[in-house]
Parts: sequence; structure tokens; C-alpha cells
Amino acid sequence: MLERSDFSAVLPAHLAAEFSEIRAHSVALAAPLSDEDCAAQSMPDTSPAKWHLAHTTWFFETFLLERFEQDFKPFHEAFRVLFNSYYNGIGEKHFRPERGLLTRPSRAEVMAYRANVDARIAALLAAPPGDAADLATLVTLGLQHEQQHQELILTDILHLLSRNPLLPAYDENFAYSAIETSNQAWRAFDGGVVEIGHGGDDFHFDNERPRHRQFLEPFELAATLVTNRQFLAFIEAGGYHDPSLWLSEGHAWINANAIRHPLYWRRAETGWQEFSLSGLRALNPDAPALHLSYFEAAAYAQFAGARLPTEAEWEHAARTAELPAMFGTAWQWTNSSYAPYPGFAAAPGALGEYNGKFMVNQYVLRGSSLATPAGHSRATYRNFFPTTASWQFTGIRLAR
Amino acid sequence: MLERSDFSAVLPAHLAAEFSEIRAHSVALAAPLSDEDCAAQSMPDTSPAKWHLAHTTWFFETFLLERFEQDFKPFHEAFRVLFNSYYNGIGEKHFRPERGLLTRPSRAEVMAYRANVDARIAALLAAPPGDAADLATLVTLGLQHEQQHQELILTDILHLLSRNPLLPAYDENFAYSAIETSNQAWRAFDGGVVEIGHGGDDFHFDNERPRHRQFLEPFELAATLVTNRQFLAFIEAGGYHDPSLWLSEGHAWINANAIRHPLYWRRAETGWQEFSLSGLRALNPDAPALHLSYFEAAAYAQFAGARLPTEAEWEHAARTAELPAMFGTAWQWTNSSYAPYPGFAAAPGALGEYNGKFMVNQYVLRGSSLATPAGHSRATYRNFFPTTASWQFTGIRLAR
Amino acid sequence: MLERSDFSAVLPAHLAAEFSEIRAHSVALAAPLSDEDCAAQSMPDTSPAKWHLAHTTWFFETFLLERFEQDFKPFHEAFRVLFNSYYNGIGEKHFRPERGLLTRPSRAEVMAYRANVDARIAALLAAPPGDAADLATLVTLGLQHEQQHQELILTDILHLLSRNPLLPAYDENFAYSAIETSNQAWRAFDGGVVEIGHGGDDFHFDNERPRHRQFLEPFELAATLVTNRQFLAFIEAGGYHDPSLWLSEGHAWINANAIRHPLYWRRAETGWQEFSLSGLRALNPDAPALHLSYFEAAAYAQFAGARLPTEAEWEHAARTAELPAMFGTAWQWTNSSYAPYPGFAAAPGALGEYNGKFMVNQYVLRGSSLATPAGHSRATYRNFFPTTASWQFTGIRLAR
Amino acid sequence: MLERSDFSAVLPAHLAAEFSEIRAHSVALAAPLSDEDCAAQSMPDTSPAKWHLAHTTWFFETFLLERFEQDFKPFHEAFRVLFNSYYNGIGEKHFRPERGLLTRPSRAEVMAYRANVDARIAALLAAPPGDAADLATLVTLGLQHEQQHQELILTDILHLLSRNPLLPAYDENFAYSAIETSNQAWRAFDGGVVEIGHGGDDFHFDNERPRHRQFLEPFELAATLVTNRQFLAFIEAGGYHDPSLWLSEGHAWINANAIRHPLYWRRAETGWQEFSLSGLRALNPDAPALHLSYFEAAAYAQFAGARLPTEAEWEHAARTAELPAMFGTAWQWTNSSYAPYPGFAAAPGALGEYNGKFMVNQYVLRGSSLATPAGHSRATYRNFFPTTASWQFTGIRLAR
Repeated sequence: MLERSDFSAVLPAHLAAEFSEIRAHSVALAAPLSDEDCAAQSMPDTSPAKWHLAHTTWFFETFLLERFEQDFKPFHEAFRVLFNSYYNGIGEKHFRPERGLLTRPSRAEVMAYRANVDARIAALLAAPPGDAADLATLVTLGLQHEQQHQELILTDILHLLSRNPLLPAYDENFAYSAIETSNQAWRAFDGGVVEIGHGGDDFHFDNERPRHRQFLEPFELAATLVTNRQFLAFIEAGGYHDPSLWLSEGHAWINANAIRHPLYWRRAETGWQEFSLSGLRALNPDAPALHLSYFEAAAYAQFAGARLPTEAEWEHAARTAELPAMFGTAWQWTNSSYAPYPGFAAAPGALGEYNGKFMVNQYVLRGSSLATPAGHSRATYRNFFPTTASWQFTGIRLAR
Repeated sequence: MLERSDFSAVLPAHLAAEFSEIRAHSVALAAPLSDEDCAAQSMPDTSPAKWHLAHTTWFFETFLLERFEQDFKPFHEAFRVLFNSYYNGIGEKHFRPERGLLTRPSRAEVMAYRANVDARIAALLAAPPGDAADLATLVTLGLQHEQQHQELILTDILHLLSRNPLLPAYDENFAYSAIETSNQAWRAFDGGVVEIGHGGDDFHFDNERPRHRQFLEPFELAATLVTNRQFLAFIEAGGYHDPSLWLSEGHAWINANAIRHPLYWRRAETGWQEFSLSGLRALNPDAPALHLSYFEAAAYAQFAGARLPTEAEWEHAARTAELPAMFGTAWQWTNSSYAPYPGFAAAPGALGEYNGKFMVNQYVLRGSSLATPAGHSRATYRNFFPTTASWQFTGIRLAR
Repeated sequence: MLERSDFSAVLPAHLAAEFSEIRAHSVALAAPLSDEDCAAQSMPDTSPAKWHLAHTTWFFETFLLERFEQDFKPFHEAFRVLFNSYYNGIGEKHFRPERGLLTRPSRAEVMAYRANVDARIAALLAAPPGDAADLATLVTLGLQHEQQHQELILTDILHLLSRNPLLPAYDENFAYSAIETSNQAWRAFDGGVVEIGHGGDDFHFDNERPRHRQFLEPFELAATLVTNRQFLAFIEAGGYHDPSLWLSEGHAWINANAIRHPLYWRRAETGWQEFSLSGLRALNPDAPALHLSYFEAAAYAQFAGARLPTEAEWEHAARTAELPAMFGTAWQWTNSSYAPYPGFAAAPGALGEYNGKFMVNQYVLRGSSLATPAGHSRATYRNFFPTTASWQFTGIRLAR
Repeated sequence: MLERSDFSAVLPAHLAAEFSEIRAHSVALAAPLSDEDCAAQSMPDTSPAKWHLAHTTWFFETFLLERFEQDFKPFHEAFRVLFNSYYNGIGEKHFRPERGLLTRPSRAEVMAYRANVDARIAALLAAPPGDAADLATLVTLGLQHEQQHQELILTDILHLLSRNPLLPAYDENFAYSAIETSNQAWRAFDGGVVEIGHGGDDFHFDNERPRHRQFLEPFELAATLVTNRQFLAFIEAGGYHDPSLWLSEGHAWINANAIRHPLYWRRAETGWQEFSLSGLRALNPDAPALHLSYFEAAAYAQFAGARLPTEAEWEHAARTAELPAMFGTAWQWTNSSYAPYPGFAAAPGALGEYNGKFMVNQYVLRGSSLATPAGHSRATYRNFFPTTASWQFTGIRLAR
């Protein structure tokens, strides 16, 4: 999903500490989980936590050690295939829906793999080979990639635990509390020719470039996210049963899958509940509605007499105004299909597969979520998922 | 797929002749077909010719006669359900994949249905009730709708005949001959803020509105369409086997369906052949490559070191320059996902289902094809299909 | 489904008349149908009437004319593939689920095909080549085969018409009336070593041979078939919702397909109705329950505190007693899986594919139905279908 | 799959030791496995080892403790649902294909569950409540049930490990060595009325009863099992590509799934290999061919000019002659569809679901395999699987 840039001034000294810290954070995220939790895969879209821990390590081994180490030898020959996600340029890949069958290597072996690669990267950073700037660029890319998987560790484990009738909590103290929203005002923006996309030298993915101009009509953006209370009103008004509110494909999808409420909601005798990383809890009406598919987001917008913003509108607003909950609460669906910016060019080689080949039949989400690691958000960031995805921390910010 | 506008100055006199002529043309298109040909459905995406003949009639009955006739009585109570395509606002619909099981009503009964509705519409036009302008608007919409189905009659029958091992021709004299192309030059266009969309009072669908501004970077557009010779070079270079050329979803799709050439091509001992409305014939290397999916079009563009145009680029070029084969040969895939224009609003009522609810996971095609009825093309027209659709007369115009 | 025997004394004279009569009957069965009716296929298990008319002709052409005619030339080269049902020994076959797409050859062409083959067979019968006995054997086999397809013409067209919301009748005067049943007594049979299977020289299929001994425990057989009234009691007692009555696979099947009543029953405001060859009619409580799958038959038997008979029990009863409705009303499910008799040997060549290769995961039905042609029933006849088949005229005779 | 009998003379003293020993054996089978290995499910037909350990415990808790303990309280309320396999009479069941998602309860918790139930059963056996004979009957049933799952622990883990590209061994010392076979002679048996089924008071499942008579034609049975060498000859003769050898449904199945050799064979550059519980090894030509589906067994028999035996033939031979490898090597497919014996009656209550409801579309296997626990084999034992099952230790003994 991401890709390297050309920035060059990062100092390896600072990088070594960052490397150490970010790598340790992935391990910490898996700490509350048993070996069994780490090995299971709940659907083809998700991956086991153990796989995330191994794949992020594979990324450093394949794209850094293999290039910069003299006398490179892989930690384990088979891992090249087992932990390749989707890079055809690297060769064979293990069949994605069967990641949960990889009971070997064990979690302990994956931890040994991480330790081995970490030490070798540290050695490289301590005594960089010829092209230090290039090394720094790739390490930074690897760390950004690792942070993306940190978010997936959380979203994927939440999905797995939700499929267990015992509904175990990932961490009973995991805090959603600070994200309540209530301000429902609209903010107006002038139109005109604006610039979007990343133009600087600091880190960004290839899909954020180039910075370019777009013409926007004047628009308004909701000051905050749609709340559970508001989404409940949609349900209670029969929203899931009114075809006039739905995209045709979305209507077929909710009926085929008997979807009648957000993914993790449950109707109990005592009222609506929501399953979360801290376990099952009563639905908080003032919290933002989470885990919505694009189809549900679009139907709600129709119900509310509004629409979803375009990604250009969202980015322009993020740059020129201060609005609550743009970052750190929920990824916000836009109605922009994921497409290359004018002049987009993928990187050469296998790393060029990072983003470009996914630019079809997916929609862009902007902002970041409560599961996004600190420092991994920016106004130009383009996340993307198919219209049926709801296991991410996704929400709705309306436009009109 | 289309919708009414607010134009009002059409005179019923002129309209009556047009009505008569367009309605007759649908029947003429089915003339080479047996009753059996007219009743069969070759896949869920297509419909029997008989169904097209009935559904277009249902459209006039439902949206015109029911509104304007005093003492309206339906021709047949059950037809309201049988020949409703997708209008939830009208009530129940027959299950689309089973249209080929409707051996009753017979073709003769459908022709009687047409005659009955035609006569009643003619009577309305001869003595218009209160709101003549509104009547004219709806008649025009019905005729534009009918023309869309005229194209589908041809594309759907071609698909049906292609599934028959006898490979019968629809019409041995059906002419593809005038559409050869060879000029491969590029045409350059300046960027800047341009206007796209329909702004006038003449007929257009709701999805063409409103006219609005977009910012374009400078771009070049190929002077003509990709030819069979060029596409064959892609095949012979192993294009269908090189994942680096494909969108990830496209690559999975061609492999799952063992797609290795355009839909109607066949490799014979004597060389490549193409099945067409005039039957099986040797592939003409100088003719445009037809019946390509979006995925194939995008892979070819990648192979050619180019890209597909956006719909704004295409429309701007169509307005400001004269390029061969923009219309009348093949619909041209753009890399624009089908989405509402800024300020788009669907019509109220069931007719509002015409376009808006399909604006997801489809891509816009521009121009028109050899199967498009005369007079049904314009620079602002937005056709749209999913990325896997190849049974339409679709082709490629490159951009860069 | 059937195969030739070794009988040899049939005189061609008598055979010619029989040939003529049986061939004409197939055409007569299609007389109430339009060309469109004859061309449609309502599910992969059924075939269009036109296909039945062609395939039975193909059988004579392939297995008789090709062998006995000097200078044999096929009527149409492609028909060898198009109308081959399942004989791998003959070569390629057309894809079964797409028989409804064969709008060509037209019905008229198929009738010409029939006329041509009929004339050539008549010529053979008038002046038999060398081995007249062998010719007679194969003609008889072809006629028995044709009779099997005559029954399928009726069952398949009933299924097609049932999928049409207009619910058209095949023939409003088609008579089901003589088959009412009410006698619910049991008939007792001694056990011991009995003989089953066909032992004589008259026509039979290979699967009826050899005649052999089986040991039976004493048993009782219901004097007649289960009625609609009785089956309705099962429904009203919640039979479709009580897993304890169902085979595990059957229970999964009815739930996955939302089956809650026999295939052609419909619950109207005025009470239960049944769709039939004579159209929709009120359910006759005293008529036999028809169109039941094996799963439904087994569940009903469990509900009734009884069981389905074995095929040996049924055949022994048919031989040694007179029981109502053994023949001519409904095929009766047995709980005997379709398997070769001890010493069974398939015929050599393509005709050997008639029966043996289907002997797995199907259950034997005995007797014959109201749709079975006269003269096509006998005590040793083994019909067979998978456990989910309900579009045949199937019913229940209990045993205990 | 099995069910209780009416024997009554077992002494609880002896039973307590047996209980202890058999329960410990299940745990020992899982000893070579990591927690991750124990939690994964490789296909819907298999179950995780942890689930087997829990389900067998659930059986004792549900059918014994709940009945015999005063003041019964479940170990964990939710386990009643989680570890119910298919007993509708007990209530809700967890969705079978998602057993691999039950990362909680952990293996340690399941071991605690086992310890708790074991202690409570031991207490019952030490001080039996009212009906000691009934208790003994149910304990024995529970132990036989546990032994069935011991075999499944091995077959299921073999399947899981086979899906891992690392191909880890379950136990490198697991011995297949003693089962080579080479004697290819035939043994002849007279026909006549024979008795099959279980008639005594010792333990047996309900499906083995009642003992009853069957008439057999004279037959011959192969003295031993088909070897890898013989099956390889079938492959090399093109057996998987010759439709004349296959049941029609079997041929469709191997083609749809691209099956061209037994489940665990692999073609390496150095020759054929076989994956086994002791890992990947060169194919031993003199060992019995294992892991064959019914379809493959039937095709091989056709190729060999023989057939599969009926279960009555097999049982009669097992009773009246001594033939190698009848037990302890591979389950032997019969061509008998799994059906109730004459007079079969299921037990009342939930335990009655043990066998009867599976008696359709499955085929009987006789003998036992190298994975069958000692003491769990007898001549009347009826194992059964669908025709596509090949992950069990299944083989071929020919008849003619």
C-alpha cells in the first residue's frame, strides 16, 4: 500500500532509535495475545498477527538486507515465499486465504526471525554501506510499512475475536473514550483551483504524488463525524430496508449477507451493544459510528440529505481549516475511487507494486483512526479499501 | 441508465414521427432473429431480445400512459413485474438471471403489447393532455431509453450467438468495414480549467449534469483507437502472462477465468479469427480491437507505456478538436470511476433510479459504438460498465 | 440410463410400426409448445424439449445409421457434438447447462433432422443389412431410450413453466384425475431368499441384470401411496422444522434452499395450491403427494413411524402381489442406493456408458409415473436420481 | 458416528483404569503439537486437535455428568455450544467451518476442562449412583467415541501439516514400516445365506445391529491391499485421464479439482514422494496405497478388471478366513452405500443422532487403519465417509 520517496537528509543515528522503537511497538501490540490468537486468520482479508510480525520482517530482509548486505544469506529459505504478501517481482507467494494454516514457523521462531533481522539492520545503520541516503530511505519506508501493519494487527485481531462466541477482549483497558463527538455544525469552503498531493521531501507514499491542481466547487464539510446516535436513527427509520437510499450494488450486498447494522453491533435485550478491542460494551450514542462499509456510509449520507466528500475536498479542508476528529478517530470514506494522480509513476522493481496495481474498484479513505500509530498520519495520506470493507476503523464525515 | 431533462420546446408533431421511427427500428433489429433467438438469455448480464422489446414498451406504459391516460388500464397486469428492469419504486421485479425462462408471453404477444402501447402513445401525442411539455420530455426520454436498448439488442444477441458452437451470423451483411484505423499520431492538449458536462436544453441524461469546471494538466490523446495488430503484439509479447502489466484484481480475474485473448477472438489453424455480427471471419489487423474489458484496456495501456484518459480529458478533446473514431466505432474506456458530478441530483420518483444508484465500482466509457443508433451520441454522454464487461463494443484510445 | 439386451426374435415388420408410433409420440408431446417453450432450459438438470427431440434422433443416427448404413454421412457434422448427452466414447459433448442457448438449429431444422433419420431407419428396417437381430436389438433400445426422454419432456417442461410467473398450463386437459388413493392398509410379505432382476429375453436395460437372489426379512408394504392430506399433516406438524426427522444432509439442504413444502405447492390465501401440467389448481387432498425429493420422502417416513422400502422388497411385492398404484402414478423412492447387481457387466463400447457410470450417490425409484409412456413399465425397472431431485413425478410408498 | 449398546456386565473397577488410560492417550497424541498446531483447522471436514480434546470431554460432561451428578453445574456455560459437534437434541452448535477461530478457550483451559471432567467421572466410577450398569454403558460409549476422535486427531493433523509448505513432520519416528504388502493372491468364498452384523453383548455401535442374514453370490477377495506400485501403474497408464474408468460424478470431481494422484503424493525431480505423519519420504512401492477417495478406489478397481467388495462380503470374509491387513493398515472402501440394517432402530434422545442421520450418500469402509487405536477394531465395525474423502487412512482391497 505504500512506497518510497526521494528524501535524503535523515540521519542514521536518529533512524536507529526510531527503528528500534517502531519494531518494538509491533511486538508490544501482540503482547496481550496467546500463541493461538496470533496464528489464526478469521477471513481471507485479514492475516494472523504472527504473519504480520513475520511479513514486516521479510520486508526489511528482502528490500534492505538482500541489497545492502555482503554475503547475504536469508534467515530461512522458505520465508521468502511464506511471508511475501503480493510482490510478484519477488517470486512465488503463499496462498493468502491459508495464512492461518501456517502453524509453523512458531511464534517463537518468528520472534527469532525478527531478532535476527533487527540485529542485522542495526549493524547496517551503525556502519552504513556506500549509499547511506538510499539506505535511510528504505529503512524509513520499511518503518512506515510496519506501521501500516500495526494498524492491521489491531483490526484483524478485533475481527478474529468478534467471531468467537466468548467475545474475549483484546485489552479490557483499551481506550476509546476520548473520541466522543457532538458538534454537528457545517464548515464552508470556497471553491477554486486548489492543490492537493504531497509536494515536500519528507516521507510519503508514491500514491500521494505528484502534488497537482484540482478545481473545486464551493462545499461544506461536517465539523465532526456521524455518531452512533445518528446512525441508530437511520436504522430505526428503516434505513437498511429502503432501497431508495442505497447504491444498487450495495443494496444487493446487504441483502445477500443479511446486513442490518454495523459490523460489531449486537442487539441485546438491554439495548444495542458494540464489540470492541476492550470487549463488549453498551453502545455509546455520542461516540462516532465505526466499522461502516462504503455502502453503509453512502446510504447514510443519502438518508441525511448530504453526500460523502471527495478526497480533494477533504484534503483541502485538512490543510486550510481545523476540524475536530480529522485524524486519530476513524478513517473517513470519500466518494473518490482510488486512482492515480495526474503524472503518477510507480517506482521501478518490486517496490513499484506497492500501490499502483490496487488502483481500481476501491475507494479512498482519509484521515487516520484510533488504531493508527502515532506519527503515521498526514493530510495527503490516501488509504483505500473496497466498498464492502467494514473491519477497519471507518466512519463518516458528511459533505454537501 | 438514463434520465429526463427539463427541455420543453419539442413539438409533438415532430415527436410523433420520431416515436414511430425509433420504435420501428427496435423491431427491425430483431427481424433477422427467430422466436427462439429472441427468447434466450446467454448470461445474467444480458437479456433476451424479446425482453428488450417488452421492457422498452413497459417503460412507455409505466411512465407515460399510467400518468397521462385517463382510466388507465395496463395491457396485462403481470407485465408490470415481468418487464420492470430495476425500478424499486415501481414494485416487484422478475429475477433478472431468469429472463430466458419467460417463454410466455410469446414474441407475438410482445408484438401485440408494442402495437397497443404505440397506438395509445400516438393518441396522446395527437391530443396531448394538460402538460404537453412534460409529455414531450417523457416521450423523448422513453425514446432515448429505447435507443440504449437497441444497442443492447445487438450486443446481447452477439453474445448469445457466440455461445452456440454453430457460430451463426446475426446478419452476414452487417458492416464493420468502414472502421479501419491506422493513424497512430498523438494530439496534444493544453491543460487549465475546462468545463465538462451538459449545459444546454437539448436532451441529455441526468448523469451528464451539471456542467462544471475541472482542472486538467496538459495531456496528449491518441489520434485513433488501438488496432487488432497492436493488441496482437501485446498477446505475442506474453501480455496476458505478465503480472506487472495488470491491475492486481484484473490479473486475478483473467487467471480465474482463463482469459488469454479478447472475448470473441479464436485461434484457428489458419490464424486468429474474430466472431462478429456478420459471423466468423479472419481477424482484420487494421480494424480496431473490440470487446475488451477495462482490465485488458488498462493492461494494454501499461504495455504501451501510456495510460487511459480521464473522462474530462476525453470530453475536452471531443469538444475542442476533431479526432477520428471518437464516435460510431467503439466505446472508449476511461480511467474515471463512474461518479456523480458536483451538484448532481437525481430526479424524484422511480425515474430517479435511472443513473445515480449505479455510481459505484463501474468505469465511464465515452464516445459511441458501431451498434449505437444514429443520433444517440454526444460529447457529454457517459456510458458505464464494470471492469470485467467485454461483450459491449468497447475499445481503447490511449492517453499520456 | 438404459442399455441393450440379447433378445433376438423381434420381427422388423412389427418393429417398423412401433418405431413409427413411438417416434410420432415424441413429436405429439411437444405439440402444445411454442418454439420458445421448446428451446428454453430451466436448470442444468433439465433439457429443452427441442434438445430431447434432437438427442433421441442423434441416438438412432449414431448407434444405428453409423453402423448399418453403407456410405454413412451424418445429417449435420456438428450435431454429433451438440446432441451427445454424456457418451465419452463418442467424443466431445456440448456443455450441458448451456443447452438452452442452442437457439440454432431451429425447431424446424430439428424436425427435418428427425424426418431424415426416420426415413433412413425405415429403409433399414425394410431391407435389413446382414445382422437383422442386432439391428432389431438396437432399434428397440433406441425406442426405449426415446420413451425415457418422452417422460423427461413432460417433467422438464413442467419445471420450465413453473418458473414463469404467469404459470401457464402445458395442457389444460392433461388428466391427473384417475390417480386418487385412499386405502391406507398394509400388506405383509414373508421374507426368505427371493429372486430379483430381469431373467428373460424381452427387452430390459443392463442395470436390471443379472437376475439374482437376495435374502429378505419379513416386511410390510403400504397398500398405496402417501396422499397430499397425509403430507400436509407432516407440514402442519412442523415437519420441515424438526431436525430429528431428517437425514443430516437433507436438513442442511432444505435450510440452505429454504424448502418448506413440495416443489410445486404454493400457499395461497384460499389454501394450498399445486402447479401441474394442467396449470395451477387447488390441492386435492386425496391425490398422491408428488414431486418429493428423497430427503423429503425419508423425513416423512420417519414422521410416520415407518421407512422407505428397499428395491428388493418393492420388486418382490410387485411380483407376488397386486397393490394399487405400483405403476402409472408416481415413481416410488426406495432407500436402496443405486449399485450394480452381483455379476453386473456393462456393455462394451459407448453404449456401455448407459447405466454403470451413474451408480453412485443416487437412489433407486421403482414403478412408473403418470408421465411414463405406456408399455415402458415393468417390475424390474430401476430408475435413479440424486437425493435432491424433485422435479420428476416422485412419491412415497411406505414400508415397515 | 457411534452409539451405545445394552451390555451391562462391565465392572466399574476395570472401567476406571480404562477410562484413565484412554483419556491419557488423547493427550499423548497431541503432545508433539504446539498450541498453534492444536488450534488450526485446515478444512471444514477436519477439526483442530484442541477441539477434539474438548469435544470428547464435552461428551462425558453432557451425556454422563449432566445425568448422573447431583447438583450438576457445567464447567463453562458456553462450552455446551462450542463443543457440540452435531447433536441437535442438545441445542445450539458452533458453526463447524469456524472451529479454527476458537483461539479461546486456550489449550491450557481445555486441559483444565479435561482434568475437571476426568476427576468428576472418576468420582462417579468410585461411587456409582443408582444405575451402575447404565453408567458403565455410557462410560464405555464415551471411551469408544474418544477413540474415534483419537484417529481423527491424527488424520486431521496430517492434513493440516500437509498444507504447510514447510511440510513439518508430526513425529519423525511415527512408524508406517510394518505394513508392507506383496501377496497378490485371491481368496475364494462360497456364497449362500450368511449372517452379518453384531449379535453379542460386548460393545458395538447401533449401526452394527441387528445381526441379520444376507444372500451372497460366490466371490473372491484379494489377499491383501493394493500397493503404491500397483496404483502407480494406474497413473502411468493414464488412469486419471481415461473417463471410461471413472464413475461419471467421480470424473467430474477429479477434473474440477485437478486431482491427478493420491492426496499426499508429490512428484519431485527424484521421483514420487509421499507426505506422512513422519514427514516427506520417497514413495515406498511395496507399501499399501493410502489416502484414496472412493472415486479413485472404484476407478482403480475398474482398471484392474475387478470391483470393490460389498460390506457383507468383507465381513463374511473377516469372520471366516484369515487375510492379511484386514485390520490396522487402511480402512477399505466397500461399494455399499451406508444404510440401516433391516430392523435398525436409533437410540432415543440426542444419542440417537450418533449414526442414523448420516445414512445417505456415504460409503462404508471396513477394517481399521494404522491410526486406529488398539482395541477399537472388529469385523462388524462400519466406518463411513463421502465418496470424495481421502484424508483418512483409506486403501483398496479388490473383489471379483
